[in-house]
Amino acid sequence: MITLDFTKSKDGIIPAIAQDYESGDILMLAYVNEEAFRKTLETGKAHYWSRSRHKLWLKGESSGNIQEIKEILVDCDEDTIIYKVKQRGDAACHLGYASCFFRKVDGERLRIVGKKIFDPEDVYK
Amino acid sequence: MITLDFTKSKDGIIPAIAQDYESGDILMLAYVNEEAFRKTLETGKAHYWSRSRHKLWLKGESSGNIQEIKEILVDCDEDTIIYKVKQRGDAACHLGYASCFFRKVDGERLRIVGKKIFDPEDVYK
Repeated sequence: MITLDFTKSKDGIIPAIAQDYESGDILMLAYVNEEAFRKTLETGKAHYWSRSRHKLWLKGESSGNIQEIKEILVDCDEDTIIYKVKQRGDAACHLGYASCFFRKVDGERLRIVGKKIFDPEDVYK
Repeated sequence: MITLDFTKSKDGIIPAIAQDYESGDILMLAYVNEEAFRKTLETGKAHYWSRSRHKLWLKGESSGNIQEIKEILVDCDEDTIIYKVKQRGDAACHLGYASCFFRKVDGERLRIVGKKIFDPEDVYK
């Protein structure tokens, strides 16, 4: 059985980076606890622990933008993982962008460089 | 001035993902506080906050494997960043691998898939 080190944070969660398995683009970062990690392994769909809603979260449960797991990588300390995924709907961000990392530091401000895929108002009703 | 949301964690730190700016490979994940983020912006070299040593950490200060910042991306919630970097020495991991994510989940075990660049015993004396 794969064991990860959930003891590093007080709440028993570790970061999970979702990365597009083809392009290598980083789509988002969220957190997993033991349950979310197990659910992901069982179902082949990315599950996280929602820190704001304090519950298990199947990514895409509202938007339909499921992340199919292609590969899971584990770091040297076993306290961070990468989900290599096929992102359904081509958008991971709740603001409608392909990636949550849609802005770059440009001097003293943030400049939008990411691609907008959908209007959140059409998706989250 | 760029402001990030350091209030999400109790210790005022947020995750910073280091990604190779050319290949898109994810090299490591560490944490930054306000000071580490400012130092990175000022110097163009990746700085982190070491959770184990409780101090500002210039990546590569022991090994020489500095990360030159090419771009910094910020996520929608402003509580995670990506350092797109040129990794000096071609290895980010203290175990000598190119990436800290050198193992993949393979059934019930972890299988090494990453590239080993150096022997840690030769580097950290």
